[in-house]
Amino acid sequence: MCGIFGITNSEKASESCYYGIHAMQHRGQESAGIISADSEMVYAHHGMGLVSEVFNNVNTLSQLKGDTAIAHNRYSTTGASSAVNIAPLLFKHKESFIAVAHNGNLVNLDKTIKKLENNGALFKTSTDTEIIVHLIVRAKEEAFPDKVSAALKQLEGAFSLLIMTRKMLIAARDSLGLRPMVMGKLGNSTLFASETCAFDLIGAEYIREVEPGEIIVIDRESGKLESFRFSPKTSPKHCIFEMVYFSRPDSRVFGDNVDRARRKLGKNLAIESDHDHAQLVLSVPDSSNTIAIGFARRSEVKFDIGLIRNHYVGRTFIAPLQSERDLKVHLKFNTVKGVLEGRNVILVDDSIVRGTTLKKLIKLIREAGVKEVHVRIASPPIRHPCFYGLDFPTHCELVTYERNLDDICRYIGADSLHYLSIDGLLNSMAEPKSHYCTACFTGDYPIPVTDKEKAQDNYINEI
Amino acid sequence: MCGIFGITNSEKASESCYYGIHAMQHRGQESAGIISADSEMVYAHHGMGLVSEVFNNVNTLSQLKGDTAIAHNRYSTTGASSAVNIAPLLFKHKESFIAVAHNGNLVNLDKTIKKLENNGALFKTSTDTEIIVHLIVRAKEEAFPDKVSAALKQLEGAFSLLIMTRKMLIAARDSLGLRPMVMGKLGNSTLFASETCAFDLIGAEYIREVEPGEIIVIDRESGKLESFRFSPKTSPKHCIFEMVYFSRPDSRVFGDNVDRARRKLGKNLAIESDHDHAQLVLSVPDSSNTIAIGFARRSEVKFDIGLIRNHYVGRTFIAPLQSERDLKVHLKFNTVKGVLEGRNVILVDDSIVRGTTLKKLIKLIREAGVKEVHVRIASPPIRHPCFYGLDFPTHCELVTYERNLDDICRYIGADSLHYLSIDGLLNSMAEPKSHYCTACFTGDYPIPVTDKEKAQDNYINEI
Amino acid sequence: MCGIFGITNSEKASESCYYGIHAMQHRGQESAGIISADSEMVYAHHGMGLVSEVFNNVNTLSQLKGDTAIAHNRYSTTGASSAVNIAPLLFKHKESFIAVAHNGNLVNLDKTIKKLENNGALFKTSTDTEIIVHLIVRAKEEAFPDKVSAALKQLEGAFSLLIMTRKMLIAARDSLGLRPMVMGKLGNSTLFASETCAFDLIGAEYIREVEPGEIIVIDRESGKLESFRFSPKTSPKHCIFEMVYFSRPDSRVFGDNVDRARRKLGKNLAIESDHDHAQLVLSVPDSSNTIAIGFARRSEVKFDIGLIRNHYVGRTFIAPLQSERDLKVHLKFNTVKGVLEGRNVILVDDSIVRGTTLKKLIKLIREAGVKEVHVRIASPPIRHPCFYGLDFPTHCELVTYERNLDDICRYIGADSLHYLSIDGLLNSMAEPKSHYCTACFTGDYPIPVTDKEKAQDNYINEI
Amino acid sequence: MCGIFGITNSEKASESCYYGIHAMQHRGQESAGIISADSEMVYAHHGMGLVSEVFNNVNTLSQLKGDTAIAHNRYSTTGASSAVNIAPLLFKHKESFIAVAHNGNLVNLDKTIKKLENNGALFKTSTDTEIIVHLIVRAKEEAFPDKVSAALKQLEGAFSLLIMTRKMLIAARDSLGLRPMVMGKLGNSTLFASETCAFDLIGAEYIREVEPGEIIVIDRESGKLESFRFSPKTSPKHCIFEMVYFSRPDSRVFGDNVDRARRKLGKNLAIESDHDHAQLVLSVPDSSNTIAIGFARRSEVKFDIGLIRNHYVGRTFIAPLQSERDLKVHLKFNTVKGVLEGRNVILVDDSIVRGTTLKKLIKLIREAGVKEVHVRIASPPIRHPCFYGLDFPTHCELVTYERNLDDICRYIGADSLHYLSIDGLLNSMAEPKSHYCTACFTGDYPIPVTDKEKAQDNYINEI
Repeated sequence: MCGIFGITNSEKASESCYYGIHAMQHRGQESAGIISADSEMVYAHHGMGLVSEVFNNVNTLSQLKGDTAIAHNRYSTTGASSAVNIAPLLFKHKESFIAVAHNGNLVNLDKTIKKLENNGALFKTSTDTEIIVHLIVRAKEEAFPDKVSAALKQLEGAFSLLIMTRKMLIAARDSLGLRPMVMGKLGNSTLFASETCAFDLIGAEYIREVEPGEIIVIDRESGKLESFRFSPKTSPKHCIFEMVYFSRPDSRVFGDNVDRARRKLGKNLAIESDHDHAQLVLSVPDSSNTIAIGFARRSEVKFDIGLIRNHYVGRTFIAPLQSERDLKVHLKFNTVKGVLEGRNVILVDDSIVRGTTLKKLIKLIREAGVKEVHVRIASPPIRHPCFYGLDFPTHCELVTYERNLDDICRYIGADSLHYLSIDGLLNSMAEPKSHYCTACFTGDYPIPVTDKEKAQDNYINEI
Repeated sequence: MCGIFGITNSEKASESCYYGIHAMQHRGQESAGIISADSEMVYAHHGMGLVSEVFNNVNTLSQLKGDTAIAHNRYSTTGASSAVNIAPLLFKHKESFIAVAHNGNLVNLDKTIKKLENNGALFKTSTDTEIIVHLIVRAKEEAFPDKVSAALKQLEGAFSLLIMTRKMLIAARDSLGLRPMVMGKLGNSTLFASETCAFDLIGAEYIREVEPGEIIVIDRESGKLESFRFSPKTSPKHCIFEMVYFSRPDSRVFGDNVDRARRKLGKNLAIESDHDHAQLVLSVPDSSNTIAIGFARRSEVKFDIGLIRNHYVGRTFIAPLQSERDLKVHLKFNTVKGVLEGRNVILVDDSIVRGTTLKKLIKLIREAGVKEVHVRIASPPIRHPCFYGLDFPTHCELVTYERNLDDICRYIGADSLHYLSIDGLLNSMAEPKSHYCTACFTGDYPIPVTDKEKAQDNYINEI
Repeated sequence: MCGIFGITNSEKASESCYYGIHAMQHRGQESAGIISADSEMVYAHHGMGLVSEVFNNVNTLSQLKGDTAIAHNRYSTTGASSAVNIAPLLFKHKESFIAVAHNGNLVNLDKTIKKLENNGALFKTSTDTEIIVHLIVRAKEEAFPDKVSAALKQLEGAFSLLIMTRKMLIAARDSLGLRPMVMGKLGNSTLFASETCAFDLIGAEYIREVEPGEIIVIDRESGKLESFRFSPKTSPKHCIFEMVYFSRPDSRVFGDNVDRARRKLGKNLAIESDHDHAQLVLSVPDSSNTIAIGFARRSEVKFDIGLIRNHYVGRTFIAPLQSERDLKVHLKFNTVKGVLEGRNVILVDDSIVRGTTLKKLIKLIREAGVKEVHVRIASPPIRHPCFYGLDFPTHCELVTYERNLDDICRYIGADSLHYLSIDGLLNSMAEPKSHYCTACFTGDYPIPVTDKEKAQDNYINEI
Repeated sequence: MCGIFGITNSEKASESCYYGIHAMQHRGQESAGIISADSEMVYAHHGMGLVSEVFNNVNTLSQLKGDTAIAHNRYSTTGASSAVNIAPLLFKHKESFIAVAHNGNLVNLDKTIKKLENNGALFKTSTDTEIIVHLIVRAKEEAFPDKVSAALKQLEGAFSLLIMTRKMLIAARDSLGLRPMVMGKLGNSTLFASETCAFDLIGAEYIREVEPGEIIVIDRESGKLESFRFSPKTSPKHCIFEMVYFSRPDSRVFGDNVDRARRKLGKNLAIESDHDHAQLVLSVPDSSNTIAIGFARRSEVKFDIGLIRNHYVGRTFIAPLQSERDLKVHLKFNTVKGVLEGRNVILVDDSIVRGTTLKKLIKLIREAGVKEVHVRIASPPIRHPCFYGLDFPTHCELVTYERNLDDICRYIGADSLHYLSIDGLLNSMAEPKSHYCTACFTGDYPIPVTDKEKAQDNYINEI
């Protein structure tokens, strides 16, 4: 889970990157980086933290000169949150440099890594991304785009990629289109981003999806755009969790408005589930707001705001007070007693992962005097790990681990619990059912995974 | 506009302060401070920034030892945002110390300051608060609470005060109760806060308001509480703007639930204003959500979420890109096109100050394809300055300056504009109409102000 | 022990202050501050640490605008090193401000403080300096210089003072001239400083001493200088320890070149003490270099460099390694084996306070193969506390506590030990013997001290 | 110009590194880093600045766990002072890691780099060091030490190397021994360092030089040490500038005491040059102290301290005041007028590079009233660039560029100038004349340099 952004032929390349990854801050809060280039030099800045923390100085941006830039915000994944892994990555090779931003996760890398290392490859990071670059420079092809194509053919897994060199900006996407990537336009500039919300902020126009299996090459000097495929066209497998939770509601992702899909999820959830005695529909703010609105419309139960989210709780918040009351949830949410007292409520959420926050939230709502809490979840139970880029916890930390629905309902302390069916989920989408990856719900993995353990383990601690 | 918090007879005095002022972060983002004391020593820490920034180290809190503590978060008011003014203030006098946290604004200070200075008073800060302490130590009375009483009798204006010494914790409130202050209980500890939301977070129980004109003295050693009045009982004049905008919706302020009052404001607004052609009610998130829900209920126009607020935009955000598009509003809000396109919408907001943000927001909504924008404001036009603690801009910066309603409607770019009447406003409150200060709307100042200029001008720059 | 600096009628007032207190960094490393003023505003910046750390930004200096400025670097004295005490102090009073920088220590303050507090004085700091300001503003005299004069008459102890107001810059010195202060000139600007080394750096010219008991008033607008006395002329009592150790060797202090006096100390020490078998004279770098050169000249024993000082050991150095070897001394000094091996050496130092560093240094020298170490000290044994501004440790921490000379020699591990006699010390000075305070050696206090405990105890901890 | 340090089989590996590179701070002030390892993990910390700045937290050191560690402090060399180049470098390869600290400079790299890149080598840094690691992992040999040997055989230039892997610590030195490296012992631990001063601080014992052309391999588990040669024995070519200026006087370098050599330089300089009319010998503190002492002894002109160095001038010092007087030299040095006034002095310095500082220093001395300044330099004129690790400025910035001796004397403003002859220089050394590289004085390069331009140009800017 990361956000990537790229732009070429722009007078404000690095500033656009800054706004682009800021708009996609929800896709990764661990670290942020921008690499820009003019015809002579490359300029890089990155750091741990939010975009606004890493780039908190106008001076920094003005030093990131050049017509072309790529940027990345990165999500914290276990064991690799060290400075050395901060993307985009940057390498020197011959008379050029190669900078790469990558959203997604490669699988079945064991053999590839072994082969590379036997041929003298040195690794600086523990990221998949570095492997891609090694494959590119070792490809026998002459032209750089052909080298990229040759490299991508050897990869399995999810990748939305932006590659910048002295001469070109390249965008590419895995043949199943597992992770999103869109192309846009602003004046003469061409832009790429994980989500369209990155375009809106700077006033760029959405053009189209980067197609699964497509490589788009833009010559930095002429601005000329060429496109070709590195793999034959097949049915895509878009990550349906992007639509359920991960993407911003005001984005266009996989050719669909996220907001539209979420309202439909809410409506389908209302159709599938009972809501006769409820007096109110509550959402878990802010991620489930749209779903809850959809649910309320369809069920004709009133939508109300019974939970207030405190937006001052940042990453730096410390919680020294040891007590049995659950402060962390309390710090994030406060209840509106006047709304909740004595009511039967429907609490709508997009999904349940561990269930711990939901459990505490229900306790909080009950303390505010609610009579009954009926939980409605806009996706099926999560039962399987994601190998393509979502950072779910290990199997046994999932609320579904060794629990049936009744157990889960009891565990979270709800009066009733309903999960949306897989059909209800897929019916809410704009594309045919077969175009989505639902592996986390169903276990149907579109790419078989042989090395279930992470190929590149990380034994380096930067302090 | 500040938040104050105090607690005595607690094993976790400074930690409770920390959570207390964190919960009231909306009342002041400029600076934060805690002063605690045990029987021997006083411990102080403060700094510029959010509570979570100033207290970003567990160690700091553990060094703020003692059974009693007071805390303050302070709003940025022009010309005095220097480190020396960070509250609470702390002075040494004889064998004790005097620490003071103050919410409110004193008026008519010219003579008092002159008299103090002629008698050798030195000032370290440019705050009202320091004047109060000078008056206290110069009072002829013997007992400290009597000194406080004598000092407060000399003051005009708004003050909710917390005073800590080696022996006691004192809470006091001006005789009109202009600013809020409540008392609570947690085990054996007594607590005071500007709003009850500060109690909820740490599980403390709301007991009652500190009465206008009341001084409550708690002996730190015995925990014994005494209460007396420094001024005879009169009709209160609560700041109605606390109910409209400033307080948190989940707080109890002036003996009323803020959330309840806001829904009522929304309903009264729906009764007063036309909404026939509207298809949607939108709120300006998050401050107007409750009002908009109230409006939607009464008008039976559907509430929907057409504006998404980006909560990653912090104080540190830089905006280097110079362009005609209005980035600042764009950074804070994004529109959901699917909701807005082709619709006639009602946009509900609590109040209009300068009107600049609202103007840009309406432009943003229009860009998303809205047909008509009908603005409904849950309070009357703001036409007069506040001398009692609200930090409105100068007269000529108000949107109402030399503009009638039509002009304002045109200026903000709305299709229609309706402000709630003063009656509609007062009808929404729990107490009798005469109990509220509405000076900013009506010009009826409950305390006549003779020195319209700030008595203590600030010529000191801390760099 | 502090350094103070002031300048008026300058286009580069704050920059000159910066260089001035930088040149006097040896007088105080705990904190540094500059306060400047133009005709309208006052500008202040201060912080904990070295001058170069507190003023590490060209921007800061350029914001300290104005024609007049005073500055201070402060030494760490036990129990009061909190931010609130960082000098110069700044107060508001009537239409002006009063900024004060003070080097020295007042004595017998108990009654003064009591009287001030009974008359309503509030204290912000635990410094002597604040008391001076309270006395000034409460003086009945009309003109400000007369108020200052009236206040200083009430004080006992050591004070070299710089006072800046909206209208004037004032320099004053206690009637015994216990602490140094000189006046200088640079173009049209008048300057004051603790030592002349502060003038050399910025190319200012030394004019004269500020006389003991003198008040010099410079009108900021006209540049007119007036001088008068607040006390009748008496025999001065200059702190002789300034000449022995504290002042910089390239300074002119108390009308004498420090370097000259130190050479003479070395010569007198050579005359008084035995050095027949010694092959080398070593100094403890850098403070004893000049003394050792003097000793070598007179004794005709060769001066050599057997100890190298590591100047990278800053205040921030951490020493985690727990071991019996004495790292701290080892970090600061390294020995040159080729010089020391097999030799009988004379080790010259200016004074012994605790003796712990010297003890470790001798051990270090012995490890380098020295045969005999003969210690020669250029001042008598320190046996009495200083009440006038030197920060010696408590009585029982002094190496002289319950030890005779033989004990001390054994304790530090020397083969022989000689202290300079009080006559040898006074003979080295330029002025008559009666003009120096030698209380720390002899116990003859020029001002009787009645309140031996610090009058203002400090119970405030800033964290 | 860098300092490197390594230790294995130690319970305090990283702490020892810390003290080791602190003692060698003079060898590089730009950046500092430590990499440590236990049997499982690698721990790395580095940053820009002094050792005490980069490691200013005891916590950091305690997180650098493990039995073995290497460390590096790096000198600022033009165009490559970016964070990515901070040493030691760390790579992952197969099941191990490779960490490398390197002092020296490789030459004639063009072909090697081209060959590596054609075989798919990606570079992360612009350092020579990375090339060494690429050669190692691509070597066909089986055992790691053999791979190292094979790689080093392909290198030309200067290198003192420390290589740490999961299994071993390896020290190696180029066949000419251009840069220093010594081996030591502390209990069961084996240590390596650029200079012996790094051993003294932690109480380690000097064992011997790492021989030119030698590879020493220590098995981390067993502590077993093996040594072999990767190149046949030849006459060494030690960098004579280490003896003249670069190494610390209390170090043992190239089998000789630096202090001894410098005294001899001073003596030879006194023999060669005229000093009849001089009354004083002054050194430029602190680097020329020992040389000046040697000169004074031999010439029988008195050594005196006429220049005081201000050791508070750190890297962070800002110099805002624009003026014709030379502040930078004035900030660093102050003159003692009493010593200098009216005298004819000999000013001894180790070498002249640009001559700008010396020029200003002479002006400063003259301002203090000196009559004649006779400059004596303890090495010949520097006329040629160093390709083996010393960072001299470009040809035309040297004071010798297009100037004969008279011109130089006039330029620096001296009354006379004498440079030590090449014979006088070589005669001062402990080893035969042929064992030293004197290329910067004579142009006799022991390794012919074909690629005079830096092979790896740096076009990456980290911001």
